[in-house]
Amino acid sequence: MRTKVVIIGAGPAGLLLGRLLENEGIETIVLERRSQDYVLGRIRAGVLEQSTVELLEKAAVSERLHEEGLVHDGVELCFDGDRHRFNFRELIGRTVTVYGQTEVTRDLMQARDASGAKTIYEAQDVSLHDFDGDSPKVRFRKDGVEHEIACDFIAGCDGYHGVSRASVPNHALRTFERVYPFGWLGILVDCPPVSDELIYAHHARGFALCSMRSPTRSRYYVQVPADEKVAAWSDERFWDELRSRLDEETADHLVTGPSIEKSIAPLRSFVAEPLRFGRLFLAGDAAHIVPPTGAKGLNLAASDVRYLSEALIEYYGERSSAGIDSYSSLALARVWKAERFSWWMTSILHTFPDTDTFGRRIQRTEFEYLVASEAAARSMAENYTGLPY
Amino acid sequence: MRTKVVIIGAGPAGLLLGRLLENEGIETIVLERRSQDYVLGRIRAGVLEQSTVELLEKAAVSERLHEEGLVHDGVELCFDGDRHRFNFRELIGRTVTVYGQTEVTRDLMQARDASGAKTIYEAQDVSLHDFDGDSPKVRFRKDGVEHEIACDFIAGCDGYHGVSRASVPNHALRTFERVYPFGWLGILVDCPPVSDELIYAHHARGFALCSMRSPTRSRYYVQVPADEKVAAWSDERFWDELRSRLDEETADHLVTGPSIEKSIAPLRSFVAEPLRFGRLFLAGDAAHIVPPTGAKGLNLAASDVRYLSEALIEYYGERSSAGIDSYSSLALARVWKAERFSWWMTSILHTFPDTDTFGRRIQRTEFEYLVASEAAARSMAENYTGLPY
Repeated sequence: MRTKVVIIGAGPAGLLLGRLLENEGIETIVLERRSQDYVLGRIRAGVLEQSTVELLEKAAVSERLHEEGLVHDGVELCFDGDRHRFNFRELIGRTVTVYGQTEVTRDLMQARDASGAKTIYEAQDVSLHDFDGDSPKVRFRKDGVEHEIACDFIAGCDGYHGVSRASVPNHALRTFERVYPFGWLGILVDCPPVSDELIYAHHARGFALCSMRSPTRSRYYVQVPADEKVAAWSDERFWDELRSRLDEETADHLVTGPSIEKSIAPLRSFVAEPLRFGRLFLAGDAAHIVPPTGAKGLNLAASDVRYLSEALIEYYGERSSAGIDSYSSLALARVWKAERFSWWMTSILHTFPDTDTFGRRIQRTEFEYLVASEAAARSMAENYTGLPY
Repeated sequence: MRTKVVIIGAGPAGLLLGRLLENEGIETIVLERRSQDYVLGRIRAGVLEQSTVELLEKAAVSERLHEEGLVHDGVELCFDGDRHRFNFRELIGRTVTVYGQTEVTRDLMQARDASGAKTIYEAQDVSLHDFDGDSPKVRFRKDGVEHEIACDFIAGCDGYHGVSRASVPNHALRTFERVYPFGWLGILVDCPPVSDELIYAHHARGFALCSMRSPTRSRYYVQVPADEKVAAWSDERFWDELRSRLDEETADHLVTGPSIEKSIAPLRSFVAEPLRFGRLFLAGDAAHIVPPTGAKGLNLAASDVRYLSEALIEYYGERSSAGIDSYSSLALARVWKAERFSWWMTSILHTFPDTDTFGRRIQRTEFEYLVASEAAARSMAENYTGLPY
């Protein structure tokens, strides 16, 4: 087999990259270790930056997103029961859209299938070769048969645990990491959300988040210790804990029901640099992780893909390697700003076991300053809705 | 003796409060433990918020300040050699004025002496009594003779180590503290400043600051470990270290000379709450300390004094205690915002012994975000020049 770009991973990053390249006539093959159903079964974040929505529009996969996505003009922050709404549309004229990552992936899969572009699911033992030269190759096994694809470039969009970053020699990578001493216990319920917009709550008992997937499906989270077990949390215990962390009005309006999913996610900040090694590029979770506070994970993957697709389109269109040469530094500049924002949102909204009373009052003051200052609120708004490229 | 308000401490907070009250015909006595010359010999900060300048104008002690003070439209931040200017006047239409705290104190002393208001220097063994009732008293010894002043109110403006806060029962105070693991080694030199405006520098070797008192007198600082000794720092070592932390252009233009003062100041954040105990009020350093990064110390004292003077003027003018009842909460709201800003400036600009590589990159990204975002730069500008009251 031969193609122009082999994309490792059929998550939203890989599929969106494939879509943007195929739309420009650049042939790709997407290799995915899992089955299509498995990929679609993963529950992930659901808040799209306006910049991400614009990129999905450009990729011509935004029809259902605009039909079903919920445009949110702002969010609410609640500190020890004091709730304040930040209206992004008024502050900076931008919004976010609630539309599950799973739905984005489904739309991209359908578009890819319809276009006839090749996707190979359940590709086993994927390995990357010779990407330090001009003729990279990707080998894999499918239904017991060994295959090799010769290509111009490899795009590693296969997440934190994927083979792409693992294929880079250790000495060529510089990594940065921060592990937070807590996780998010999340539940999914078929109940209407307690509020039209997201509520991020800081409370002495810990962080809580009221989120949603649709007008009838809600997603709620509470901060728990890092070593907490899901089994310790009955639905009833979850609802009681959530209520205790919200303001009274919100707690009173909470519509509860049986959980259809319940899990604990750890919180971590991680960046690997650079994003290019010869003819291998990393994009999305393969290169960086953000804690979920602020919902930047999928959006950052889209950001990388935007830079990378433009670089490859420039390469094939103009035979110029300027774009691919600057991909890593351009993408990383935006990655770090989102890492900063996610770290900051995480820092002010959670309780930390080793924070002194001064630190707790500073968290409270960050909230009061955001409420009091238009400049500070605009800064939060531009980060939440997506910094300019 | 009897007066309306006894003010403990003849620093800028006490003298400014006295001035604002006397201007409204409210009689005060200022008690100071030290001599006038000792008070004027203390070297302190020198950057006045626009809000502080406005308050000194209102107090009619701004003539020399406007003649000799240097109006700065902005500051520069330098990160690992990359320097960027933030123009506060362009960003938000406000400025700061460089005018030494010692000069502010001198102007206030001269105005007080001219007005005939009573100031008692070298008052020994000052003690505060009965401020939980309607008839507070202050006792002290002067030239071996015991004195007592009966008054309506006591204003504790006598700094962190003063008797005022120490007179409050421990159980009535809530304190918040953060001690930073470093100090500032500062020198004063009779050389022209390297730049017209302040340069705050972050470098892998530590923080540095290029400041000034006048067009011919400069003040420079470098971050040193908390347990460092001044004796270990010859002038030559200081200049070498300072140069190594600045960008090349600034380092090349540095005009050096023999130090006329050299000392190490620790960095600490501290707040005591509340600011009122019956008929005793605390203001300025008596109640709170900020690290010097961002130059908020004197400005916060002025902020407290503004709220307190308005409260007392309202009390005597309208026989209403509404102002004195809300003094503590109003003043503290602004105190905490300045504590937040000073902590943030300190956090991004210094090196911390326990910061991991992720944390160091976040510091760098804070700088890059400030450079890239007008909203973030405006937020810094409004804090630096003084938040609205």
